[in-house]
Amino acid sequence: MTTRPPADVGMPAADIDTPALVVDLDAYERNLDRMAASLAGTPVRLRGHAKTHKCPVVALHQIARGAVGSCCQKVGEAEAMVYGGVRNVLVSNEVVGAPKIARLMGLARQAEVAVCVDDPGNVRDLDQAARAFGVRLPVLVEIDVGMGRCGVAPGEPALALARHVAAQPGLRFAGLQAYHGRAQHINEVDKRRAAIEAAIADVRLTVDLLKRHGLPCETVSGAGTGSYRWEAASGVYTEVQAGSYCFMDVEYSLVEGFPREFETSLFVLATVMSRAAPDRAVVDAGLKALSVDKGMPRVRGRADVEYQRASDEHGVLRLDGAGRELRLGDRVWLVPGHCDPTINLHDWYVAVRGDRVEALWPITARGAIR
Amino acid sequence: MTTRPPADVGMPAADIDTPALVVDLDAYERNLDRMAASLAGTPVRLRGHAKTHKCPVVALHQIARGAVGSCCQKVGEAEAMVYGGVRNVLVSNEVVGAPKIARLMGLARQAEVAVCVDDPGNVRDLDQAARAFGVRLPVLVEIDVGMGRCGVAPGEPALALARHVAAQPGLRFAGLQAYHGRAQHINEVDKRRAAIEAAIADVRLTVDLLKRHGLPCETVSGAGTGSYRWEAASGVYTEVQAGSYCFMDVEYSLVEGFPREFETSLFVLATVMSRAAPDRAVVDAGLKALSVDKGMPRVRGRADVEYQRASDEHGVLRLDGAGRELRLGDRVWLVPGHCDPTINLHDWYVAVRGDRVEALWPITARGAIR
Repeated sequence: MTTRPPADVGMPAADIDTPALVVDLDAYERNLDRMAASLAGTPVRLRGHAKTHKCPVVALHQIARGAVGSCCQKVGEAEAMVYGGVRNVLVSNEVVGAPKIARLMGLARQAEVAVCVDDPGNVRDLDQAARAFGVRLPVLVEIDVGMGRCGVAPGEPALALARHVAAQPGLRFAGLQAYHGRAQHINEVDKRRAAIEAAIADVRLTVDLLKRHGLPCETVSGAGTGSYRWEAASGVYTEVQAGSYCFMDVEYSLVEGFPREFETSLFVLATVMSRAAPDRAVVDAGLKALSVDKGMPRVRGRADVEYQRASDEHGVLRLDGAGRELRLGDRVWLVPGHCDPTINLHDWYVAVRGDRVEALWPITARGAIR
Repeated sequence: MTTRPPADVGMPAADIDTPALVVDLDAYERNLDRMAASLAGTPVRLRGHAKTHKCPVVALHQIARGAVGSCCQKVGEAEAMVYGGVRNVLVSNEVVGAPKIARLMGLARQAEVAVCVDDPGNVRDLDQAARAFGVRLPVLVEIDVGMGRCGVAPGEPALALARHVAAQPGLRFAGLQAYHGRAQHINEVDKRRAAIEAAIADVRLTVDLLKRHGLPCETVSGAGTGSYRWEAASGVYTEVQAGSYCFMDVEYSLVEGFPREFETSLFVLATVMSRAAPDRAVVDAGLKALSVDKGMPRVRGRADVEYQRASDEHGVLRLDGAGRELRLGDRVWLVPGHCDPTINLHDWYVAVRGDRVEALWPITARGAIR
C-alpha cells in the first residue's frame, strides 16, 4: 500500500515524476544550521516537531546538530521516530484511551518517552498503565497560554495537577508544556510578540509557584518557528518545539517580521497536463498533493503564474504575460500553503542537491494519526 | 509504512481506536442499491469514481450491482483498481509524460483501459507508446462543458481532436468525456439543472457533429452525484461517473434539492482527549484525519456540539446545553466536510454493521497521486 517513489537516486531533477514532494537539500541544511546556531551557547535546546516532518531522517539531522530529541502529537508518530533511531521523544499532547496508553508505555521501555496531561482522570490511567509496564513515565502538565485548545489554566490549576502527577508512583512530574500555536501566525510583529510575552509571563508565574511548592520544572517545552527566539530568550523555557523552520511555507512567508533566517526548502513539483485555454494551465497537483487549509500554493519564481484553485487532482493556474508560454509537460515548483498537512499526503521526500536527486526519504509517520 | 488498522473484525464498534474512518455498512449498501435501481432498465451504466473511494472492494461492490467498471483520475489509482480485480477502467483525465504513459500502456495489456485527451501533442505521445506496447488504446476526447479546467471546446475543436485521435494507428476514438464538476454543488436546484442542461446541449451538439463526420461516440461519460439523474435521462450520456453517492458528506448535504435517496454512511470516529473548559472539548481528529477544504465536519446526532476549528491533530468542539456533559474518552461521530480528500488521509475503512466491526478494507489507492 505504500506508493513507489517518484524518482531514483542519481536522476536529474528534471526527470522526477510528478506530483512529488521535493526538498532542496542546500536550503534545508542551511535552515537546520541556522536554528542550531541561534540556540548554540544558550541553555535552550531544540526539540524538533515530528508532526511537521513525519520522518526520522529529518529528526536525526536535527539531533546531529544539537537537538535533544523529537516531539510528536501522536503515539504512532512517536513509534515511527523511536523505531527510526530517535532515543528521546516527548508526546507534546494528551494520550487518552487504553490502547494508546499501552502503546505509549511499551515505547517507554524502549526509549526515553514523556507525555503531557491536562486531566486528573487521565493521570490515574497513565499511572496504572505505567506500573503495569514497570516504567516511571515523565509527565509534563500542559498549560493553556492563549491557544484555547488543550491545557489547564496557568497558576493554581497547574499546581493542583502537578501535585496529582507527583503523587502517582508510576509517574514523574517533569515540568510544563506551554505552546501558543495561534501566536505563530499573528501578522503584526508587535502583537505577536505581545501574545508570546503574555504566554511567557504565565509560564514564569507557574514555574515559580511550582518551585515554591517543591515541584521544580526540569523541562519547560513549547514555542514554534514564528516565535521561538522570544521563548528561547525568556529564561524559563528549556526547549523549543519548532517544526516548520526546516521547510517553511506560504503561510509563514506572509507573516510580518517573519523569521527571515529560514528559506523555503520544500516544494511540490507539478506538471502542466492541460493547456486548453490561452490564460489557463492545469497542473497535476490538487487537494491530494497539497493542503490548501491555509491558502493556495505559490508558484516559485513566477509572478506571471498564479495557482488559482485546487480540485481533488487538479490545480488551475492563471497565466499572465510570459506565463502564457507555459507548455504541456512543463514543470512548476509549488510552495505549499501549509507544510505540515501537505507532507502528510506524501510517502517520500525527494531530496535534491542542485539538479540531481541525492536521496529518497520515506515519510514513515505519514498517516500516523493514532 | 502502512498504518496498522484501528480495529479488529468482530470487535464492538465502541472499541475502535480513533481517529478511524468508519463505514456504516447498512447505509452504504442502501446507497449502492439505490444508485443501481435508479439506472436499472436504462441504457446508462454506472462507472463509479475511484477517486472518491480509492478502494477496489468498493469498486467490486459497484460492479456486482451493474456498474460497467471504474473511473480514475490517476494511473496509480487505475493500477490499484486493476490489481484489485477491476477489469474495465477509464482514466477520466489527461495522462502526460513518458513514465505515466508507459504505465498506462502496460496496464492496458492487462485489462480494458481507456484515457482522455485534450491536446494533439499528447495524442501523438499516446499513439507512439501504444504502438510500442502493441495495444490499441480507446481514447475519449474531453470537452469543457462549463468546468473551466481540462478539455477542448465542444463542437468543431472536439471534432478536430477526435479526427486526430482516429488517425493514429495505436489509438481508437471511443467517444467523449464531459464532466461538469462545479455544477454538482450549485446550491439552487434550478441553477444547477440549468448548468447541467447547458452541458448536455454541448454534448449533444458535439455527438451529432461527430456522427455526421463518421465518428460515432460509443461512450459518453461524465456526471456526478449531484446531477447524475439529469445526465442519465439526457439520451446522450452512456455512463455516469458518480463517486460520493456511496458515502455522502456535509458539502452535499448543504446543497438544495440534493439527491435525498443517498444517506450519510461515512464517518470519522473521534475521541474527546481534553475537557479543560466547560464549553470546550478537544477531539483527536484534525486536519490529518479530516479534510476541511469544503468546511468543517458535522457532529452526528448532536445539535449541542459544534466542530468549530481544526488544527493539525486537534478538533475544537464548542459545547452547548447537554453537550457540556461530554466527558474525556467519549466518542463523537464526525461527518466529513468533503469525503474524497478525507478518505485519502486514511489507510483503512472500518466497515461496521450495527455495533460490530464486520470488515477492514485497505484503501490501496490512498496516496496514488501519480
